[in-house]
Amino acid sequence: MRGFGPNTLGLVNTATGLTTSYFATKAMLKPGAIGVAAQSGIFVGALLRYMSSMEGLELSKGLGLGNKMDVNECDALEYLARDDQTKIVVMYLEDLREGRRFLDIAKRATKEKPVLLLKGARTAEGARASSSHTGSLAVEDSVLQGAIGQAGILRMGSIEELIWTLKGFRTMPLPKGNRIAIVTYSGAQAILTIDEAVNSGLKMATFLPPTLAKLSEVIATPSKASNPVDLFPDMMTHGFERTSTKIMEALLEDPGVSAIIFISFAATGPEPYGPVASMVKESASKPVFFSLLGTRDDMEACRSFLEGMGIPCVPFPETAARVISHMWRYTTFKEQGEP
Amino acid sequence: MRGFGPNTLGLVNTATGLTTSYFATKAMLKPGAIGVAAQSGIFVGALLRYMSSMEGLELSKGLGLGNKMDVNECDALEYLARDDQTKIVVMYLEDLREGRRFLDIAKRATKEKPVLLLKGARTAEGARASSSHTGSLAVEDSVLQGAIGQAGILRMGSIEELIWTLKGFRTMPLPKGNRIAIVTYSGAQAILTIDEAVNSGLKMATFLPPTLAKLSEVIATPSKASNPVDLFPDMMTHGFERTSTKIMEALLEDPGVSAIIFISFAATGPEPYGPVASMVKESASKPVFFSLLGTRDDMEACRSFLEGMGIPCVPFPETAARVISHMWRYTTFKEQGEP
Repeated sequence: MRGFGPNTLGLVNTATGLTTSYFATKAMLKPGAIGVAAQSGIFVGALLRYMSSMEGLELSKGLGLGNKMDVNECDALEYLARDDQTKIVVMYLEDLREGRRFLDIAKRATKEKPVLLLKGARTAEGARASSSHTGSLAVEDSVLQGAIGQAGILRMGSIEELIWTLKGFRTMPLPKGNRIAIVTYSGAQAILTIDEAVNSGLKMATFLPPTLAKLSEVIATPSKASNPVDLFPDMMTHGFERTSTKIMEALLEDPGVSAIIFISFAATGPEPYGPVASMVKESASKPVFFSLLGTRDDMEACRSFLEGMGIPCVPFPETAARVISHMWRYTTFKEQGEP
Repeated sequence: MRGFGPNTLGLVNTATGLTTSYFATKAMLKPGAIGVAAQSGIFVGALLRYMSSMEGLELSKGLGLGNKMDVNECDALEYLARDDQTKIVVMYLEDLREGRRFLDIAKRATKEKPVLLLKGARTAEGARASSSHTGSLAVEDSVLQGAIGQAGILRMGSIEELIWTLKGFRTMPLPKGNRIAIVTYSGAQAILTIDEAVNSGLKMATFLPPTLAKLSEVIATPSKASNPVDLFPDMMTHGFERTSTKIMEALLEDPGVSAIIFISFAATGPEPYGPVASMVKESASKPVFFSLLGTRDDMEACRSFLEGMGIPCVPFPETAARVISHMWRYTTFKEQGEP
């Protein structure tokens, strides 16, 4: 007989429809592929509510570990790693009770599926609050950082980064390299994205001659037909639909492009994005993220539209760069067995 | 005769209703207090659309600097610093054409109003893209970082951070110190927020005896009546309304508390937050941010409700810590004249 908690909001198993939590919603019980274990009480419930309210982020299992008197992070990871329904593992932890065992289990787990970690109590003050919260002991964060990286665990900087990384893994194939291409209406946003991509370990793709030739059919200005590809104002000649699909086709076919970020405007509703989004959906050869800036309502409409097609649409494109970088790190780890 | 651009989307002056941009929306022309200058073409237009679609973020002036052949960042900052309608200045820049002059102007400007900077082309790759975008020359980012900090300019990490920092300055008073208090339903979220606050230069407040006495009236568990104040499960005894208002009253009155982050759940709609939000609105003595986690729709409903009352409600509480840290840095700079 094993025990969870104390201080847990309970369990959710969408394969059987079991829940021991009063906090469960209907969406939370819809079977999905994401297994979550959290060393917390109420947080896991609220996080699962939030996650499962987003298309594609349905759960397999939800485990509230609470204060881990018996079942701890190792047991949870071992269980989720073996669980066939679970394709991605998410953990919120404040400490590691059995550090070495956890890393051994993680090394095997990350060969099979991505493990995303949100770690609380990084600072001394956070650890102090944690010790009264779940009775955690402080771990030097830099030591932990090295160890979890070696085990192939992907560390999330924030709840928001966690959500978008999940979206990336759930909806897009893994990148085969770390070279990104950017398509943009806005030089400024492309530059902010390049900065973030480079700081996250990605590189800008150099296009092959056939790609350049194809791009030049719709983008007559040579500097705008290189990476980042700047739609404006050349696309006035051929219109948005032909220009955007031609560019996307060229970039999807270029083996030197590992992932694509399409930055544009949410100015006239989502419909103009239909053809280029359909092309992305059909290809499924490399990760593609959209990011469309405009009024909040227009952005929301575009996000819903693309999300309905299973394509991630981030509010700001820098987020896409961070997500692609996590996905690329996972590809490398899975293939080489070492970071 | 002075010229803007080339490669500019034009100008907006909400005091006179003037716009030279085809990109302007009705909301963008509603008079407000935020002056924006951006070294970009289309980005400034899209950014202004997004900003002005949010309550409290209406514009005074919008200046598309484009490639800055004549009017540059110095002229723009000097103008916005002197403009009475403008209470906060926002700049997106890829380079500084006249670095020393810019810093001199900034030093005077930041005595009067906050200046928020989003800087593109931080990396060599970003700078390369920028040189074909607006013809910018690369500046070593670490050199720039020191100089802008000394001039009291607040550097934004992302568009999202910019938006929430604007919300903070527009709706809340400046903090008088760097000691924050956290009220929470969720130990885990409090801990993530403490980590971020400490890494941003904030500290946890120690409550005075009268505060502790008042908190103990609704929170019977001593460890939960200290900072962070944990509502659950003690509030079951007195109900959410009495518990939340009593705690807020105690924290608003404690002179050792400079700012408050209230972390809770968006589970049952925004109404339960009415009484505690009204208290915050009436007091206006220190910055208070709410962050309510739940399904996306519930979170949106809570945000709208609180935003309608002029109170910032961030999606995730770590953001509030970063915003308070920017506001505190500005207080210090304004008072001491040195960072």
